[in-house]
Amino acid sequence: MQNINKIINGKMYADSLLREILPLSSNYSDKFLRNPCLAVILVGEDPASKIYVKNKLLTAERNNIKSIEIKLLKETTEEHLLNEISKLNKDTNVDGILVQLPLPVHISEKLVIQSIDPLKDVDGFHPTNFGALFMGDPNFIPCTPLGCFYMLKKELKNLDGKNAVIIGRSNIVGKPMASLLLSSNCTVTITHSKTKNLREHCRNADILISAIGRPEIIDETYIKPNAIVIDVGINRLDLNNIKTNEKKYKLVGDVRFEKVINIAQKITPVPGGVGPMTIACLMHNTVKAAYMNKNEDFVNIIEGFS
Amino acid sequence: MQNINKIINGKMYADSLLREILPLSSNYSDKFLRNPCLAVILVGEDPASKIYVKNKLLTAERNNIKSIEIKLLKETTEEHLLNEISKLNKDTNVDGILVQLPLPVHISEKLVIQSIDPLKDVDGFHPTNFGALFMGDPNFIPCTPLGCFYMLKKELKNLDGKNAVIIGRSNIVGKPMASLLLSSNCTVTITHSKTKNLREHCRNADILISAIGRPEIIDETYIKPNAIVIDVGINRLDLNNIKTNEKKYKLVGDVRFEKVINIAQKITPVPGGVGPMTIACLMHNTVKAAYMNKNEDFVNIIEGFS
Repeated sequence: MQNINKIINGKMYADSLLREILPLSSNYSDKFLRNPCLAVILVGEDPASKIYVKNKLLTAERNNIKSIEIKLLKETTEEHLLNEISKLNKDTNVDGILVQLPLPVHISEKLVIQSIDPLKDVDGFHPTNFGALFMGDPNFIPCTPLGCFYMLKKELKNLDGKNAVIIGRSNIVGKPMASLLLSSNCTVTITHSKTKNLREHCRNADILISAIGRPEIIDETYIKPNAIVIDVGINRLDLNNIKTNEKKYKLVGDVRFEKVINIAQKITPVPGGVGPMTIACLMHNTVKAAYMNKNEDFVNIIEGFS
Repeated sequence: MQNINKIINGKMYADSLLREILPLSSNYSDKFLRNPCLAVILVGEDPASKIYVKNKLLTAERNNIKSIEIKLLKETTEEHLLNEISKLNKDTNVDGILVQLPLPVHISEKLVIQSIDPLKDVDGFHPTNFGALFMGDPNFIPCTPLGCFYMLKKELKNLDGKNAVIIGRSNIVGKPMASLLLSSNCTVTITHSKTKNLREHCRNADILISAIGRPEIIDETYIKPNAIVIDVGINRLDLNNIKTNEKKYKLVGDVRFEKVINIAQKITPVPGGVGPMTIACLMHNTVKAAYMNKNEDFVNIIEGFS
């Protein structure tokens, strides 16, 4: 296979998912005389967070989803933030609430996440939603693993009995990813910083999901021939020119793409892989929340779930 | 090592845990002028369930825990059961509520579990508690995996980097077990009926947890030399005498104990392994609930948790 045919085009899959969501949000508007509505809270001025929020709001707008942006100073008190969330919980015109993470250290992420109405928790981080996912009866599924899962289902159709290895055990990616793959009958191994012989584990993977957050550390020696590789990492690699003092950087994944593509069956690029899917899944969850909040059935878009 | 020294004595560990719990329940009684209280609901006449409930009530009594048994006919409506739970939720003299599973098919287990106040959910099956466990911030941990984990911590102390393989992906054992082992820095593989090459996965396990529910199917060919083997299965093996028409049976685990003990470093027997620990952990959770419901600190008994 030519290498170009081995690229899992996340942008294309995201556009395809959004094309399915758009008529649902339009039908919603026709029926309830308002658009589905997503409220995003951004605390502070973290540059990466600002870019993420901007992309989310832009994608919402393009897909007939109303968005509300609430910008708070980085000195905002926990109490004030909880108050804002409480107002959004009560507002029947708000369907989804997202608090952009990370939060400043003086605010408890745990408390904040628990304060969001589980029926508006489009990030799927509330313990009730997290628990429902692990019990095999999901409500809102965290957007990044949901996006990875969507691409895997599109690529492989049947995941029965595949060996899936996940690198990273975070609540945002690794653990929910494990639950989704387990529900699809994969044998699932979760590895992390304390794992011994990481390479050996990875070389056993029909499906490898990397969510480490370190640039290009997974090279071709970690890959089983013909594996499907999903690279969740988005790492900034500085390319400063010492002579001209010009500051440049490029985004790379956890995986050494140019090498691994020669061995893998398929691989997601960075950028243009998992990133666009994450945002598309947020739109999916928001429109789902809007339907659920009106006690309306939501058509199952992501196979096996929703 | 002589084989007798390879047996992980679950009864002994359970007694040791109960000895730590007893003064806590006694102190509670002194302070609040009533014993911690566990309500157990049994629907129908399933013989195994009746034995389990009887053992739970007996152990409670011996450990200064008041127990209330509510027996309902197998024809009981879902509405009636939910009503009983609602009364127990409101009763400030009841600390823990346990509905013995399985329930008759006309009653939704999901609805029943969700109806229990999460603060009284000593089985740890409510989605909120299940989610909190997977988020790494557990409240009530399901009793069987908690019991297995307690024995593992006592045997091994440090689980960092161990390869743990779990057979079975149930909500009651496999999934919460995975979460506990992951929090203790094991590399965790979850296998199940759709797993290919189960034997190979198992032979890679420093810690093997079997929760299949089929008699003695894990033999010595599945075991890595020096592995720790925890056998969660409790299977009834019929030993009927055709000549005399006498009906006899014995209880066996998933693991072929007599063979595996020659290769393993340590192994739990059946009976006398995981079973007694499950009940001891229920007592632990009940006393914990009693303290929590009075907003009192609960002393951390099970290392790394509670």
